[in-house]
Amino acid sequence: MSISTTIVIRMEIQKSVATFGEVAAAIGAAGGDIVAIDVIRSAKEATTRDVTVNLHESANEQIVKVLKSMPGIRVVNVSDRTFLVHLGGKIEISPKLPIKNREDLSQVYTPGVARVSMAIHNDPGKAYSLTMKRNTVAVVTDGTAVLGLGDIGPEAAMPVMEGKAMLFKQLAGIDAFPICLNTKDPDAIVQIVKAISPGFGGINLEDIASPRCFEIERRLIDELDIPVFHDDQHGTAVVALAGLLNALRVVGKQLETVRIVVVGIGAAGVSICNMLLAAGARHVYAVDREGIIGRGAAYRNPEWERLAAVTNPEGIEGSLADAMRGADVFIGVSGPGVLQVEHLESMAQDSIVFAMANPNPEIEPDVAERYVRVLATGRSDYPNQINNVLCFPGIFRGALDCRAATITPAMKVAAAKAIAAVVQPDELNEQYIIPSIFNDKVVEFVRKAVIETAIESGEARRIPPDFMDRPEPETR
Amino acid sequence: MSISTTIVIRMEIQKSVATFGEVAAAIGAAGGDIVAIDVIRSAKEATTRDVTVNLHESANEQIVKVLKSMPGIRVVNVSDRTFLVHLGGKIEISPKLPIKNREDLSQVYTPGVARVSMAIHNDPGKAYSLTMKRNTVAVVTDGTAVLGLGDIGPEAAMPVMEGKAMLFKQLAGIDAFPICLNTKDPDAIVQIVKAISPGFGGINLEDIASPRCFEIERRLIDELDIPVFHDDQHGTAVVALAGLLNALRVVGKQLETVRIVVVGIGAAGVSICNMLLAAGARHVYAVDREGIIGRGAAYRNPEWERLAAVTNPEGIEGSLADAMRGADVFIGVSGPGVLQVEHLESMAQDSIVFAMANPNPEIEPDVAERYVRVLATGRSDYPNQINNVLCFPGIFRGALDCRAATITPAMKVAAAKAIAAVVQPDELNEQYIIPSIFNDKVVEFVRKAVIETAIESGEARRIPPDFMDRPEPETR
Repeated sequence: MSISTTIVIRMEIQKSVATFGEVAAAIGAAGGDIVAIDVIRSAKEATTRDVTVNLHESANEQIVKVLKSMPGIRVVNVSDRTFLVHLGGKIEISPKLPIKNREDLSQVYTPGVARVSMAIHNDPGKAYSLTMKRNTVAVVTDGTAVLGLGDIGPEAAMPVMEGKAMLFKQLAGIDAFPICLNTKDPDAIVQIVKAISPGFGGINLEDIASPRCFEIERRLIDELDIPVFHDDQHGTAVVALAGLLNALRVVGKQLETVRIVVVGIGAAGVSICNMLLAAGARHVYAVDREGIIGRGAAYRNPEWERLAAVTNPEGIEGSLADAMRGADVFIGVSGPGVLQVEHLESMAQDSIVFAMANPNPEIEPDVAERYVRVLATGRSDYPNQINNVLCFPGIFRGALDCRAATITPAMKVAAAKAIAAVVQPDELNEQYIIPSIFNDKVVEFVRKAVIETAIESGEARRIPPDFMDRPEPETR
Repeated sequence: MSISTTIVIRMEIQKSVATFGEVAAAIGAAGGDIVAIDVIRSAKEATTRDVTVNLHESANEQIVKVLKSMPGIRVVNVSDRTFLVHLGGKIEISPKLPIKNREDLSQVYTPGVARVSMAIHNDPGKAYSLTMKRNTVAVVTDGTAVLGLGDIGPEAAMPVMEGKAMLFKQLAGIDAFPICLNTKDPDAIVQIVKAISPGFGGINLEDIASPRCFEIERRLIDELDIPVFHDDQHGTAVVALAGLLNALRVVGKQLETVRIVVVGIGAAGVSICNMLLAAGARHVYAVDREGIIGRGAAYRNPEWERLAAVTNPEGIEGSLADAMRGADVFIGVSGPGVLQVEHLESMAQDSIVFAMANPNPEIEPDVAERYVRVLATGRSDYPNQINNVLCFPGIFRGALDCRAATITPAMKVAAAKAIAAVVQPDELNEQYIIPSIFNDKVVEFVRKAVIETAIESGEARRIPPDFMDRPEPETR
């Protein structure tokens, strides 16, 4: 595959030693195509330029190497497109209205703002109408489980959280702000999130390592009156359930009767098992390195203890191979190479395999596809991508709009069914069980399902205008 | 003074009981002028409308009272302009670039973002170029000393912090985000601010009560490598010094020789004393309820202990009246009624009075003006408003641009001189010692002065391109 890319090389050229013509010739000879030149600074002895070069990806290193070897040339920096879009960060904070004159200022700031502050002081619920709270979510991480990269720290987590905030706004109109913590202590994280919560309408926990993530989320849910949602757990679980519901439709099986093997019982795996059970599955088998989790053993991780009591009804013991024999569904959130062809061959007919390990699935999709009826991965370069981005914008949009204090299991199941329902029955097939994240029905469907469920269960503290049977005005 | 204002009345009208014509007539009779009607909801039995009414401020209550007394009318809500601009909050978070397709997504989010995160993981300093850190300030409060309102809590502080964030962006292009904490414990506040600091390039502490604010700021300055600035202390002090420098020019006196009485030794008062000394003043007298602070007494507040050692060189004892006798300058950050005409009469010739208590000055300006040569207040409805807004945008712009680890006393004094310098010598007079906050030279002058001082003192960790003598490219 030929991948052409664009890089920007910032270089300082000593005028007495080298000319730009020599530079241009060297870049061309190495396979680069100069498409733009910006003079950044020009002094007597040296000029600094940004040279934008189109090139085949493989030529990147060669060009830089050639330039670095030239006398009179100092390569200051090389940026590719991905780095360029990150310069200075990806989100910004803006006033919703300009302050044009003193009257504007006296309304949005002192002295006028004092009346607004006192109105909230007298009725704290007014924070939802008179501040940004109702539309604002904190994206909180400690940087311990960032993407597939592990514990890379809070600074390095920032670009991911900023990207998440972009998606929150673009897909669901939510103002999300990254809070990257330089502590890994669960007590401290709980205390900090509680302390900063007054300005936020919801908390999206992100990329916090297992098993600490369970305790942190549980305590925050208990102690805060705004929704708290660990996306790595529940976002993944909601979208996996959505895909599974449609995959079962394709193969004509029922969730209640299929045997489902979930492999990799970390943050996502635990939530997937719980979601499957909440949605009606009865034969769930949780498998980790130590084998099938079951009632016979004792586990240090309290989440495993809990899972042992509610999964594996027949008390099967053994390895992944034992669990896979006769299974209808495999859901993997583990690592590459976990799944073998023999495992697939031992599954029931019309098997469903979600190999969601990132970036490399539990088995190569090209290898697996001939053994299974429906195949899904976490990757965008194969059909059926199980992607969290399908869940978090809509689920928070719904929870914020109805001011739910928590996002209940029923709301998560409703979100999964809503995502599944975006794929129309006549569109549904083995290669299309899950909608694209760019399908704008997704957020709308998920929001609606979440709000309906929250209203039914009494979780909604506000009825959005579009959900009022008898029209009644919104109270500000 | 005739003040006309606009209010929006949301009302529900039972169709069988009342007509909108009757409502309109009632509003007109009560002195209101209907300028817009928006139907919010229309059902069989009732309609809900937003009625926008121009009226004289004094007619507000009367109109609402009349409407509430009418059968078939339910007044749902009454909003005036100030409340209307606050609906849903005053700031928002936006992507700097849209995610139009999968390629965009793969650059700003997974999988491309992983390379950016790893670049920061390998070199944490890259957080300044590859994230929003370099342009982002946290506006942190515990809601204990909000405006003149006192301890009204973190939710009620939000509108003020959002207003501050608007000013940061509009005046200095800085992305500021409100962090309103529901803890008042200094240890907890220090721990929390440290924990959330990785994503921020600076910390603006705001409206934190004295004396806790001193400890919190001091510890954060010591323990963080980004600038920490308690605006209530230093913003006020910088702008007061700016005004004083120009006032002294007007009356032809020298900072080194004048006797300056500072009254109200809380957050702002302590910093004003320190700033005056840092700028060269030698005769500063700090006065609080207990009288003139001096070496003779013992104080619980360590800041007072420190001040006692460096102010009041002659060891004067007594009350405000004793301090004021022969004083050249009065700077008040206390409360209304503190200053009497007799105090003014006992001052030296060409006296300078900054009566900055908010919202009501230490003495009525109309009363004071005939006794003093230069009068300044914190109010916008008199000449010479000493307003923090003149300081914080520029001082943070400068500190961020040169990546200063701290904002030193020298940088604050430089900022004060820069603000003073915006008023040209030929413009300077008793009524114009301080520029307007809408004067766009202010941020530019303050930024420049702060950066120059930081470079000179070695505080700058980056030389902004416009400060390079020998042009040298910025390292990304």
